Amino acid sequence: MAKRRNDKEQLPEQVAGNGLLHRRLFLQSGAAVAGAAAALGTAQAASVGEAAPPWMLKQGAPFTAYGVPSHWRTNITRILAAAPPPPGREGAGSSRTPLQMLEGTITPAGLHYERHHNGVPDIDPDKHELMIHGMVRQPLVFNLNSLLRYPMESRIHYVECAGNSGGIAGAAEPQQVNAGVLHGLLSCSEWTGVKLSVLLQEAGLDPRATWIVAEGADSAGMSRSFPVWKANDDAMIALYQNGEPIRPEQGFPMRVLLPGFQGNTNVKWVRRLKVMDGPVHARDETSRYSELMPDGKARQFMLQFEPKSLILKPSFGMTMQGPGVYEISGLAWSGTGRVRRVDVSADGGKSWAQAALTGPVLPKALTRFRLPWNWNGQPATLISRTTDEKGLVQPGRTQWLAQYAPRQNFHYNGMQAWGIAADGKVSHVYA
Amino acid sequence: MAKRRNDKEQLPEQVAGNGLLHRRLFLQSGAAVAGAAAALGTAQAASVGEAAPPWMLKQGAPFTAYGVPSHWRTNITRILAAAPPPPGREGAGSSRTPLQMLEGTITPAGLHYERHHNGVPDIDPDKHELMIHGMVRQPLVFNLNSLLRYPMESRIHYVECAGNSGGIAGAAEPQQVNAGVLHGLLSCSEWTGVKLSVLLQEAGLDPRATWIVAEGADSAGMSRSFPVWKANDDAMIALYQNGEPIRPEQGFPMRVLLPGFQGNTNVKWVRRLKVMDGPVHARDETSRYSELMPDGKARQFMLQFEPKSLILKPSFGMTMQGPGVYEISGLAWSGTGRVRRVDVSADGGKSWAQAALTGPVLPKALTRFRLPWNWNGQPATLISRTTDEKGLVQPGRTQWLAQYAPRQNFHYNGMQAWGIAADGKVSHVYA
Repeated sequence: MAKRRNDKEQLPEQVAGNGLLHRRLFLQSGAAVAGAAAALGTAQAASVGEAAPPWMLKQGAPFTAYGVPSHWRTNITRILAAAPPPPGREGAGSSRTPLQMLEGTITPAGLHYERHHNGVPDIDPDKHELMIHGMVRQPLVFNLNSLLRYPMESRIHYVECAGNSGGIAGAAEPQQVNAGVLHGLLSCSEWTGVKLSVLLQEAGLDPRATWIVAEGADSAGMSRSFPVWKANDDAMIALYQNGEPIRPEQGFPMRVLLPGFQGNTNVKWVRRLKVMDGPVHARDETSRYSELMPDGKARQFMLQFEPKSLILKPSFGMTMQGPGVYEISGLAWSGTGRVRRVDVSADGGKSWAQAALTGPVLPKALTRFRLPWNWNGQPATLISRTTDEKGLVQPGRTQWLAQYAPRQNFHYNGMQAWGIAADGKVSHVYA
Repeated sequence: MAKRRNDKEQLPEQVAGNGLLHRRLFLQSGAAVAGAAAALGTAQAASVGEAAPPWMLKQGAPFTAYGVPSHWRTNITRILAAAPPPPGREGAGSSRTPLQMLEGTITPAGLHYERHHNGVPDIDPDKHELMIHGMVRQPLVFNLNSLLRYPMESRIHYVECAGNSGGIAGAAEPQQVNAGVLHGLLSCSEWTGVKLSVLLQEAGLDPRATWIVAEGADSAGMSRSFPVWKANDDAMIALYQNGEPIRPEQGFPMRVLLPGFQGNTNVKWVRRLKVMDGPVHARDETSRYSELMPDGKARQFMLQFEPKSLILKPSFGMTMQGPGVYEISGLAWSGTGRVRRVDVSADGGKSWAQAALTGPVLPKALTRFRLPWNWNGQPATLISRTTDEKGLVQPGRTQWLAQYAPRQNFHYNGMQAWGIAADGKVSHVYA
């Protein structure tokens, strides 16, 4: 009884090459949206009214104390390493967020990426302590119960590993893997905790102090330095993630949160903050997480990320269902603050159309962008490009690579391109 | 080596009776904050530097495909009904969000409250269909794959059961139970889906259409009517919750989302939207979810919630740790739009101080408020009161009760009061 709509309404004008339409199609709810929706051709001839489906004919499942995802979606998991870890190294490595299977901007805690240097410690929260010492008027020790009495802050921020997307920097040919494998060391949560500046003021910073080294209570004793200005800006000792106590993989019972700084500096399971007059030059800021420059020197302490973006719909592993109107959507972010705009190209960078941003656009948080695209069924190359509120523009891959020595792959924020073939298959391309 | 700080800095001035301090204490990071923090007296004499804790001495746990909360926090669960359900009725009732154990504003999906009328159906997402029919130019049927091609929207919104907090309306004496038991039919998520207006425009609304009835594919066939204006305003067919596919308890694979409308109208597992020229008068809008008025008539279709708030820290079940500075924090919300302000009283409503709101303050979303309080160790009564952007003010309990016939307990949005005893114990009081 229900049937597919046949009338062809006018689509809004193309604003960039290869079928990119004006973002207002998604910003209004007028005739143009209905027209485009009709062009999607999604209605079907069947009716749901004719018979009750089997699940309506029996009592459903009872209440549960802690819910889990649908058993129809058990394929949505973190992306674990392809090769099994060597013996004794089961806790060193990473797992990734399956970005291409998610929507919106919040990452459920169960799918937040992991990067551990020797596994997840099992910390008794009642015995864990955090010490602030070094160049302070008086060293202080806090436990979870004492921190819970301090004023709290809640903010939505992304966390990204400095090595995220490194495979694009390093591989001569584009790897044919999905967006999560390429870029999934990236997640976004609502974090709640105590402003670090409040705790430092209580300890009394020596005016000569310039750096702080944070040490984790994992068996790697993971340690990183960060500047005092960041500690006094928006740094937090985070205790809650997406409303509930922070998960073990994210630092239970407490972690450092340095919004927009490389993930590794957001030290998990933090037990010690030593205030110093310079960085400590820990292993993870000398042998790793520094950038090899063309002159053979390593650049240290480029801690803050720059603007970046990524198209997820469509992306590798998906197949277009024939010519017609599609939504292009993806994520944009910058370690410097807010995303100001995202531009999308469907012709490999020759022309660009501005995407619609889903509000609220928050500083140092993932921002979802969307743009309508009328695909004509011909090969196309999709790229996205972020400009942040400081005016920084995401570079192309070649432009990004030119800054560094060969095979340096930290802090990759070059553009990501997807090729669409005439048969609708999406592949990873360099453009 | 680290020690407790002894100097007593000046606290900012009291702005309302019984020790309420100015909210700017939490809005700045100046000396006043450090002063208040010192007043918390949380530092301890021990040092974490002296010995490594046992969890640093062995390799940690490896990576997991889907993370779960810490085993140290298995007490944080949904609150299930106190009495076991009668045989055959295991799927009828509710479970509640443990609000007093959470922070921030996002509810993890595993703790989102549940209200089912005959359990959670196990729907095959590839066989589920949504039909739009009735007063439309042409009926249409959508499945999950077709909806996924439509333009999406992401928004953070709360959902609340119309019966939430009903125990306060109905009980002559205040129940001595925690905030989750009293008010936990309330949760907040980032929802992503397709604007309902887009689908209705494609079907072609008859200009005489005024109401839509939504039917769920559960075995209760749960049906509710809502007005066409709401469908064309901010209604959504939600497909994702907090980034991942919507959970079974929340309507997998799709639900109606009517931001700010009573939870029951946000029909889960939605299979049918029939466009009509009046409400359908379904069982759940006649026998339930209507309000008995003093004249003996039932008021139907008061669908939109009004401003409400709730102090969670401190709340029933907690004990104050002696006189000193505390953070008061809680949640505020309104079905009409944004929270404009929240006021807090520590003297049972005689005087009020304005709380700080954690931004971004979003329409029809939970908003966290915080205020510093210098508790003098004497008995006190804490109350919070929301004013929304329409200027509506949350009523007192007596004022709320006066609107209705005795024992009508839907849409309770009266103020919640907590009594603090001299020994620090927090109890539920009517004020």
